[in-house]
Amino acid sequence: MQFEAGPLLSQIITPEDLRKLPKSDLPQVCDELRQFIIDNVSVNGGHFGASLGVTELTVALHYVFNTPDDQLVWDVGHQAYGHKILTGRRENFHTNRLMGGISGFPKRSESPFDTFGVGHSSTSISAALGMAVASGYKKETHRQHIAVIGDGSMTAGMAFEAMNHAGDIPNNMLIILNDNCMAIDPNVGALKEYLTDITTSHTYNKVKDDVWNLLGKMSKFGKTAQEIVSKIENGLKATLLKQSNLFESLNLRYFGPIDGHDIDNLTTVLNDLKDIPGPKILHCITTKGKGYSLAEKDQTLWHAPGKFDKTTGEIHKKTYDDPQPPKYQEVFGHTLLELAEKNPKIMGITPAMPSGSSLNIMMRAMPDRAFDVGIAEQHAVTFSAGLATQGLTVFCNIYSSFMQRGYDQVVHDVCLQKLPVIFCLDRAGLAGADGPTHHGLLDLAFMRCVPNMIVAAPRNEQELRNIMFTASLDTFKNHEKAITIRYPRGEGVMPAWRTNFEEIEIGKGVQLVEGEEIAILSIGHIGNEAIAACEMARELGLKPALFDMRFVKPLDEELLHRVFTQFKKVITVEDAAIQGGFGSAIAEFMVDHHYTSQLIRLGIPDEIVEHGEQKELYALCGIDANGILAKIQANVSTQVAKNNPKALVS
Amino acid sequence: MQFEAGPLLSQIITPEDLRKLPKSDLPQVCDELRQFIIDNVSVNGGHFGASLGVTELTVALHYVFNTPDDQLVWDVGHQAYGHKILTGRRENFHTNRLMGGISGFPKRSESPFDTFGVGHSSTSISAALGMAVASGYKKETHRQHIAVIGDGSMTAGMAFEAMNHAGDIPNNMLIILNDNCMAIDPNVGALKEYLTDITTSHTYNKVKDDVWNLLGKMSKFGKTAQEIVSKIENGLKATLLKQSNLFESLNLRYFGPIDGHDIDNLTTVLNDLKDIPGPKILHCITTKGKGYSLAEKDQTLWHAPGKFDKTTGEIHKKTYDDPQPPKYQEVFGHTLLELAEKNPKIMGITPAMPSGSSLNIMMRAMPDRAFDVGIAEQHAVTFSAGLATQGLTVFCNIYSSFMQRGYDQVVHDVCLQKLPVIFCLDRAGLAGADGPTHHGLLDLAFMRCVPNMIVAAPRNEQELRNIMFTASLDTFKNHEKAITIRYPRGEGVMPAWRTNFEEIEIGKGVQLVEGEEIAILSIGHIGNEAIAACEMARELGLKPALFDMRFVKPLDEELLHRVFTQFKKVITVEDAAIQGGFGSAIAEFMVDHHYTSQLIRLGIPDEIVEHGEQKELYALCGIDANGILAKIQANVSTQVAKNNPKALVS
Repeated sequence: MQFEAGPLLSQIITPEDLRKLPKSDLPQVCDELRQFIIDNVSVNGGHFGASLGVTELTVALHYVFNTPDDQLVWDVGHQAYGHKILTGRRENFHTNRLMGGISGFPKRSESPFDTFGVGHSSTSISAALGMAVASGYKKETHRQHIAVIGDGSMTAGMAFEAMNHAGDIPNNMLIILNDNCMAIDPNVGALKEYLTDITTSHTYNKVKDDVWNLLGKMSKFGKTAQEIVSKIENGLKATLLKQSNLFESLNLRYFGPIDGHDIDNLTTVLNDLKDIPGPKILHCITTKGKGYSLAEKDQTLWHAPGKFDKTTGEIHKKTYDDPQPPKYQEVFGHTLLELAEKNPKIMGITPAMPSGSSLNIMMRAMPDRAFDVGIAEQHAVTFSAGLATQGLTVFCNIYSSFMQRGYDQVVHDVCLQKLPVIFCLDRAGLAGADGPTHHGLLDLAFMRCVPNMIVAAPRNEQELRNIMFTASLDTFKNHEKAITIRYPRGEGVMPAWRTNFEEIEIGKGVQLVEGEEIAILSIGHIGNEAIAACEMARELGLKPALFDMRFVKPLDEELLHRVFTQFKKVITVEDAAIQGGFGSAIAEFMVDHHYTSQLIRLGIPDEIVEHGEQKELYALCGIDANGILAKIQANVSTQVAKNNPKALVS
Repeated sequence: MQFEAGPLLSQIITPEDLRKLPKSDLPQVCDELRQFIIDNVSVNGGHFGASLGVTELTVALHYVFNTPDDQLVWDVGHQAYGHKILTGRRENFHTNRLMGGISGFPKRSESPFDTFGVGHSSTSISAALGMAVASGYKKETHRQHIAVIGDGSMTAGMAFEAMNHAGDIPNNMLIILNDNCMAIDPNVGALKEYLTDITTSHTYNKVKDDVWNLLGKMSKFGKTAQEIVSKIENGLKATLLKQSNLFESLNLRYFGPIDGHDIDNLTTVLNDLKDIPGPKILHCITTKGKGYSLAEKDQTLWHAPGKFDKTTGEIHKKTYDDPQPPKYQEVFGHTLLELAEKNPKIMGITPAMPSGSSLNIMMRAMPDRAFDVGIAEQHAVTFSAGLATQGLTVFCNIYSSFMQRGYDQVVHDVCLQKLPVIFCLDRAGLAGADGPTHHGLLDLAFMRCVPNMIVAAPRNEQELRNIMFTASLDTFKNHEKAITIRYPRGEGVMPAWRTNFEEIEIGKGVQLVEGEEIAILSIGHIGNEAIAACEMARELGLKPALFDMRFVKPLDEELLHRVFTQFKKVITVEDAAIQGGFGSAIAEFMVDHHYTSQLIRLGIPDEIVEHGEQKELYALCGIDANGILAKIQANVSTQVAKNNPKALVS
């Protein structure tokens, strides 16, 4: 559904139009922009709180800077809705996150104003520094480079690496620290405390006020910003500012904290900073969800609330007559607590996704045994390894695509040392509306090549519970291996999911459907599509057999010998990259054992899969029930087809 | 060769023996330990400067702490020779880094004193924090946990992530910052400047002296350490120490800087710190190579100098009558400069390996175009991506196993955005004496699954030069893909390596040897072993054909169709993990196109390959010429064997 923009906003096609407005109009632009976001997200869904929190910052940045020649890099990008609306995408904004529509994140292919594609956190400083260094090298001295990064993203080591470099080489980059004390969940870590200290420190604020007063006064006397800064540095700063600041320690000039919702002051300060050479950081205090009181109050819930009634604030939930299957996330969260209540060795770890992963269930019940370590996948993995060396049973839950951030630690700190850490990879497979940055398609390939790593993918709630239970047993440690348990975002298939625990034999698959002529080998949740395909095939008179392999590594070789001896045609199905994944492992088995059956590998092709609903994307990639059925039909033998013309591909 | 230890050192079998000595003996223990390291490394080779730099620290730590119950984690581990010698491995120390001998790094399977296996940097704080939290949870309140980390390793984001967490949860961990201003090369970045500032600051040192004097005085009056710290915190610290320190910003109590070579003071300070609760950091200033003057002077050269005459300091170089092939590293370094001199778009990036990668050649010649960004693989990749968005041609050189640290950035910031960054993966394949942490075996698997990534492996110097040249051409950008160019540590095969540049067609392999009956497909440098195997086979009357595929992705499908049509037996050879790598890609091709030839895949098996010389490890894995020949012999048909009994396996 498309919405009307307010009178000022509707005139803004690009930031050039914004820059023509008098400064006094900006508060109204902010109001209209905020309202437009509320109108749209309430009806179409999407990320909410983050963009409301940076409304003034967004308007001020595009007003002051000459975007896109001046280059603006948004970190993560949840907060970039305002930016998109001001940069040519207001008319299309109602297509946000829909298949074929605009992306929920900045994306280079979508607009020249999106200078760098994002989705994962903490890349903005590195990227903007690269742009700034390139401009310096090319003598494009007029260009400005701005990274906007949240305090949550600042906890990732990558941001620190970039600041350490930025403070050491010539560049004029501006980092804007958007400090709202939040990641998706409340931000954690010592840095957060420090930022709060800065903000609340009386001494500090006194000095800061003095500095900014001085800045104000001197401006009136016509001094340049450079002179002002020089004056400050020779005066107050040497005695206190420089001494007292983490960022100054890294040779970044620190300014702030300032109110990130004071549009008037923001434009003034940003204008002043333009002329200040060297790398610098402006600390802005903002409120996530600003301007929508419910969102200000429960910031985690309103990070991405789904659709809602903007007047009452009621979040729309689908209602059903029948009990529905739970999300895998909920199954993980409740099951882990259930296991931990009986097994005192169990610990839980998440890098900044307590609500997304449902580790918050255990965190609430057992705060000394479940940890949010911040946006810090590298640390999360090695911290888990450290715990595991002491005989603890560690469940480390990381989204599949974010696990790419902790890969070396999995290899080097866990698997080389044969530590039995249990990695639960949430959001594996096609993530849906979040799109390419969040699809978890590579995990099967990058995990199965690591020695001492077991790779499992449960097909449903019961299987997830059982493999978690199995990995939590002390006997599991005898394997001297880590385990990856991958499952997708969203609902499973079992309304009555709280099943009794049963141990699963590591590396054993199961036959789900008896059949002839053609065998389907599936892995994980996508196996449910294979089940549906088999049912549809039955109705057409075809009899495919179906095996849930359960493990990509180790493969159930006994089962595979049986399958390849019996079946001349075999289809593999996975919701992961086709190159190097599950079907690839089956291909390896097949050639290593000189089987000559025909293998048809279904999975995600070797290209970028854009955003859309999960079901749409399954269909697009040919791994939904219809896609699998089509492959069954295309591969039944002529004999079967003759006896049963219905079975042929229509 | 085994060396005698001095009279005190020879009595020390475990740290318990050390702890029985009077404190006044420790300087002599240090001297003897240092001498033992010099004696051994000069004759047997290995890492040198780092261990000399922490001799006093090593002795002090084992003297003061109750290792291994108190848990000591060495970061990276280059510096742990003294630790190994004091913890039961003196008698075996002459086997250091040799096949079957002790590892050059701490290793859990080797000793209970090696609490955490290392090799890659910056893991120690995470690991020790995990151990400390486990001890806290288990109420083992007597146990101490110490991470020893260099200032170079502190530049990696992972260390920051761990400190951010450590400062926020209950634990009593001690971090020892071993500040010698060095990584392997001189340390870079703003943090280094900051640490130097602390060390040289008059104000700071004045305060520090006051604090330590106070500490000394109060000790005499029998106050406990807790009281002392409390006193300090209420007094001086609040006004300056806390205000002025980056580590205090993260809620780590900061102590120092102190002289890391003053064994007497070190033991005193470490003893005091035992009783101070909470996470804390002790800043020790040390000199890499301490006690061997040449090593103190040229610290990069003496990081791992090879064998040398300990009296004259002459480093032994093998001499040859004939010209020898250069190292791939040298070819990379010189070729990049050669290309950059003609192409102003070219930039070079290394995360802390300028001498190891030879990027220092370009850095010296073009300091504005080649950057050492610190131990910061994540930043290195995304900084490269930022540069690439501005049309620059970026060569980002990262060791294969370290690339595991920047994997998400490769996927998310480079390949999703179709940025043509050129990744040169040094130390790909079996790294040799550095062992499992440094083997680069997974790159083919984890890179080929990423969309928009080309994966190439040159067979020799000329091929490396040509693929670098090809990737540097503006026409390469039309592919809209990144490229991985992997090559091993060490010498190539072409003494006359400075060949003219020729463009290589992306995705095209070459036939190296004509043949019949069996085909060998090789990738990269290991292809030279295949060439040798073919020559040996010829002498036995066999005629294998040999193809250098050059690219793992895209595969040369035209060539492969020819091969699988013509040959019923095909052998693949790679110096990478067999699961998911090159042979796996070939297996995928084969089954996808319904070829039924017999495929024999040679490569690194799915297990940890320990350290040893590269050639020994090639043989161990069956990918040297003899191993390949054996597979050829085992697979020649009965017919050939009948005609030529010599050809049978002996």
